Amino acid sequence: MIAIDPARLRSRVETLARFGGLPGGGVTRPCWSPPYEEARAWLLGEIRAAGLEAWVDPAGNVFGATGMGGFGAERPAVLTGSHIDTVPEGGILDGALGVLAGLEVLQTIREAKTAHRLPLAVAAWSDEEGRYGSLFGSRAFCGTLDLLRVEEMAAVDGERLVDAMARAGFDARRSGEAKAPAGAVAAYVELHIEQGPRLEEAGIPIGVVDSIVGVRRSRVVFTGQADHAGTTPMERRRDGFLAAADYALKARDLVVKHGGGRSVTNFGVVHVHPGVSNIVPARGELVHEMRGPDAKTLEALARRCASLASRVARRRGVGVELRPMSATAPALCAERVQAAIEGACATLGLGSTRLYSAAGHDAQNLAAITDAGMIFIPSKGGRSHRVDEMSDWDAIARGANVLLHALLALAA
Amino acid sequence: MIAIDPARLRSRVETLARFGGLPGGGVTRPCWSPPYEEARAWLLGEIRAAGLEAWVDPAGNVFGATGMGGFGAERPAVLTGSHIDTVPEGGILDGALGVLAGLEVLQTIREAKTAHRLPLAVAAWSDEEGRYGSLFGSRAFCGTLDLLRVEEMAAVDGERLVDAMARAGFDARRSGEAKAPAGAVAAYVELHIEQGPRLEEAGIPIGVVDSIVGVRRSRVVFTGQADHAGTTPMERRRDGFLAAADYALKARDLVVKHGGGRSVTNFGVVHVHPGVSNIVPARGELVHEMRGPDAKTLEALARRCASLASRVARRRGVGVELRPMSATAPALCAERVQAAIEGACATLGLGSTRLYSAAGHDAQNLAAITDAGMIFIPSKGGRSHRVDEMSDWDAIARGANVLLHALLALAA
Repeated sequence: MIAIDPARLRSRVETLARFGGLPGGGVTRPCWSPPYEEARAWLLGEIRAAGLEAWVDPAGNVFGATGMGGFGAERPAVLTGSHIDTVPEGGILDGALGVLAGLEVLQTIREAKTAHRLPLAVAAWSDEEGRYGSLFGSRAFCGTLDLLRVEEMAAVDGERLVDAMARAGFDARRSGEAKAPAGAVAAYVELHIEQGPRLEEAGIPIGVVDSIVGVRRSRVVFTGQADHAGTTPMERRRDGFLAAADYALKARDLVVKHGGGRSVTNFGVVHVHPGVSNIVPARGELVHEMRGPDAKTLEALARRCASLASRVARRRGVGVELRPMSATAPALCAERVQAAIEGACATLGLGSTRLYSAAGHDAQNLAAITDAGMIFIPSKGGRSHRVDEMSDWDAIARGANVLLHALLALAA
Repeated sequence: MIAIDPARLRSRVETLARFGGLPGGGVTRPCWSPPYEEARAWLLGEIRAAGLEAWVDPAGNVFGATGMGGFGAERPAVLTGSHIDTVPEGGILDGALGVLAGLEVLQTIREAKTAHRLPLAVAAWSDEEGRYGSLFGSRAFCGTLDLLRVEEMAAVDGERLVDAMARAGFDARRSGEAKAPAGAVAAYVELHIEQGPRLEEAGIPIGVVDSIVGVRRSRVVFTGQADHAGTTPMERRRDGFLAAADYALKARDLVVKHGGGRSVTNFGVVHVHPGVSNIVPARGELVHEMRGPDAKTLEALARRCASLASRVARRRGVGVELRPMSATAPALCAERVQAAIEGACATLGLGSTRLYSAAGHDAQNLAAITDAGMIFIPSKGGRSHRVDEMSDWDAIARGANVLLHALLALAA
């Protein structure tokens, strides 16, 4: 039975980990950064060396393919992929696994000369982690990028997307040209680490993703009054930070209580102005993220949080403003793709279970234009977005082989 | 009766406000910054033009004097002063008033050829607001600067004091040479805006300060675990920010409840690491400031807050570290100086009341080496450390004339 080369895959994973690699392990490789651009050049070289067609689209997405002449050719392609950007101090598998396993699968099929009716392709999507805008590359490819917003997209440190892309040799304003022709993709399958503890704890090697959570991000800004932190009586202070702190604690409890057991929330970005020890903060600013697999629950949570923000602001004598930053709806995976993955598991004698993805993925954009699905393998200790994120090398090989057989089934 | 020139004083206040002046009013003039250095050069010129002796010591403190040849001469000097640095987006009077009123008083006395047994001097102390270390210049002058810490002193943006002072032409390591000889200062009186609402609300023109609050600053660092903000179950998160938020809200209530009605607290600096919307914060960091006029109460509050921090950390599964940054003890003003100020008020027919200062001042350092006191005038609306901080020009003239007569009484 055809199988991938686990040593070659591992070697590529370890090589890619060196671009932006950190002294104690883990990687910081944000999209468009110098280490990212070096990694992208290396990846293109590997695709070419594997004997595959290689190209880059105007959104910076990298493709490798066998048996096709770009998207929109006569026969639609069966596509796999993921991303090679990372969060700051992230791990070596998140994204990288899906791209390099896809490359390994295509190389294996090409070298084995295995027949496949439809062409096969692998993608490395730009800025999945959203330094400038999450799932940027796959949004451009799927035609859901808001081109009017490209000019204002910027990283938290203020760097603009147009400048970052220009440095890498791209014109951000032309990202829309990356849109795939209608009907160009026959199916999409993405291999990824679970990033949570469910598979490991259940002792099941393969997760078949049935849905992907929606993610809502808003900026919540409480505005009070800067005052002297010694001379202003405590009861007269209008403290923007304490209001933000109060809101964060209560919103967290609200999401746990009303989220149906599957919704989560986070306050990962916090800014206080003017940020001086002897001045009462005039402004407390949070980025409030909420996720859940159910669209209605997510909507209801957003409404509850908005009214909570108003109550907290009123009680503390400050103003509050909610600015929506992004919102993706939960996405359903195609039954046909789930069946192909389960068929591959059966072929390989591997147990599997259906589960939802608690993280956003490029697959959710692809789900809007084609039949999409995802394969999960266990994450050690459920760890993710951390330098010590890992999976067993055996589990990685199992996941890549499931991808191989699922792609062949979908391309047959 | 001898009196200051209110128009000349106002003109100098308005001129000084232009160094680091902001478009909508107010000033940003941190110590050692380019606008500060320009303001310092201008002040030296004004002192000289007023016919006073002028010099700068190794800590960057600026002095003007009449009838003396520097500190440690035969007769001790009666000293006044304040500072010309400001907080970011501060007002035009905080500090500036005490320096320019002192200059105006000395110039008035010199021009009127009024007899005074002891020499008179005015100081502009470096970095009162503590960009690098609060009350820096007066600490150096009073011999309480910890020279071993000078190398590590740095602003919140990371800039080191030694570099900032070197840019201004000073060697920070030599700041200790600014120490005044024992017995060089006969008394110290500082004129300042109240920075709170008490005088205005009571309708009393002059405050005679009887004590100055002690200020404690600590860095409180909660360390949890960075995790993926989508895939990590809510109950397993070890969120450094939510722990910091919980602590801040509870510590605020604790200080209000156990602070004896006169202690205050603030969290003006907040940092979250890694600071990304889709990562659970591994670390939440606060600068916790507490002030109070009573040393024992302040000590007890610090102990209660330390145990609160441990409880919050334990309950939330994170670690916590408290790093003391600075601590000044509450200072008592000398009865002799308070009497001199009250005598000046009687001479001028002005009502006065004794009160404590809720803000730290250079006078608290001077209180350790001489008889020290402070004169307060009302702040409009109690506003302070804000661009719209202000007092009436008439109130300013009244305060300067009280300073004039108090200094003459102490120098007689």
